[in-house]
Amino acid sequence: MSKSSIDQKLESFGLSLPSPKPSPGIYKPCLTVGSMVYVSGHVSMNTDGSYINGKLGKDLSDEQGKKAALQCGLAILGSLKNHLGSLDKVKRVIKLLGMVNAIPDFRNHPQVINGCSELYVQLWGEENGKGVRSAVGMGSLPGNVAVEIEGIFEIE
Amino acid sequence: MSKSSIDQKLESFGLSLPSPKPSPGIYKPCLTVGSMVYVSGHVSMNTDGSYINGKLGKDLSDEQGKKAALQCGLAILGSLKNHLGSLDKVKRVIKLLGMVNAIPDFRNHPQVINGCSELYVQLWGEENGKGVRSAVGMGSLPGNVAVEIEGIFEIE
Amino acid sequence: MSKSSIDQKLESFGLSLPSPKPSPGIYKPCLTVGSMVYVSGHVSMNTDGSYINGKLGKDLSDEQGKKAALQCGLAILGSLKNHLGSLDKVKRVIKLLGMVNAIPDFRNHPQVINGCSELYVQLWGEENGKGVRSAVGMGSLPGNVAVEIEGIFEIE
Repeated sequence: MSKSSIDQKLESFGLSLPSPKPSPGIYKPCLTVGSMVYVSGHVSMNTDGSYINGKLGKDLSDEQGKKAALQCGLAILGSLKNHLGSLDKVKRVIKLLGMVNAIPDFRNHPQVINGCSELYVQLWGEENGKGVRSAVGMGSLPGNVAVEIEGIFEIE
Repeated sequence: MSKSSIDQKLESFGLSLPSPKPSPGIYKPCLTVGSMVYVSGHVSMNTDGSYINGKLGKDLSDEQGKKAALQCGLAILGSLKNHLGSLDKVKRVIKLLGMVNAIPDFRNHPQVINGCSELYVQLWGEENGKGVRSAVGMGSLPGNVAVEIEGIFEIE
Repeated sequence: MSKSSIDQKLESFGLSLPSPKPSPGIYKPCLTVGSMVYVSGHVSMNTDGSYINGKLGKDLSDEQGKKAALQCGLAILGSLKNHLGSLDKVKRVIKLLGMVNAIPDFRNHPQVINGCSELYVQLWGEENGKGVRSAVGMGSLPGNVAVEIEGIFEIE
């Protein structure tokens, strides 16, 4: 079985996709409409499936938040791979909504969500890895996770 | 006048659609682009049009929040019916953004938003009633309502 | 060089577009898919590029928040003009997500985000200037800006 080029890149970066976990929520992880794939909010979890919890500006440093956003990005890739069969079917990132669990005074949401966006630029390049984006601060997130990211991707 | 099958299901569940209320906001409740209907954020209101207010984790129990999310789901159906003429034109749920008015420590957003998602699965089934979703905690919501939900639906 | 009709309207209102500023975030301001243009979250900045900061309900009055939302609306127009070449290519507003940086008790998000929506109705009229919308309260926003708005527009 040949590995997809995206799988090979992830391996070369030393990254692996978190194991999917059952969720208490009633939704699909991904849903295709024509050439667009809508992706549910994916929360920050380590590769072993344990959650990355806490609020930015209080419990976690910006660097830890950025790592949490990277893990959201990997969790999204895991769901896209399950949904599409291969990550090589992804053509480009259309849109991300990066939601940071933060105290009211937190200011560095873009730098945190860059943890996900930098990965996608490494995988798909400047043109296709960068979509539109909002990076904003939530009052709370499910299970007190640090970051949650939802998105829209275009497929071939 | 024959009732739509969705209307009949709602009646059999003992549910009715909230009366639409004038909003201070400048927007359309629904807007169609091709086969996609975009739906504005709908706030939690009872069938008589009174709002369901308060913050999860402080003023309302999770069960009360789940009821508030159900009422958002019904308010969306009311707007979709006005917009489309019949709810039988809805093919499937594409996406929901479930926004919970909560204290910073609240953790059970998915369980709250399930109040809306369970209704949609009862109406359209597992395949078409479940779309992608994010269920997240807002710092505040208009008029201190408990829940606000926006969405995208596909029509025939 | 002839001015577009939208440019002429903005001039007649005494409004000008904020100068774009480099952002610490990794994203595109706008991205076209078919006839839809997705627009990133644009934060409240004055025409000279300085940010409008502070939380509604504490640091800023509702009127100041409404002005901040207007400036977000202008910043979006600046990015759309860069992306499309002319604002006359915009056919209609599809969707706005208006995010207000507010204290937990704030209630007037719709009135604040109307600052953007009123501008769009002045530019494109009741039918095309009004899309679907959610106006909600964030726990925090990048750099403590007062308002951030993202959107989807349809082009000719």
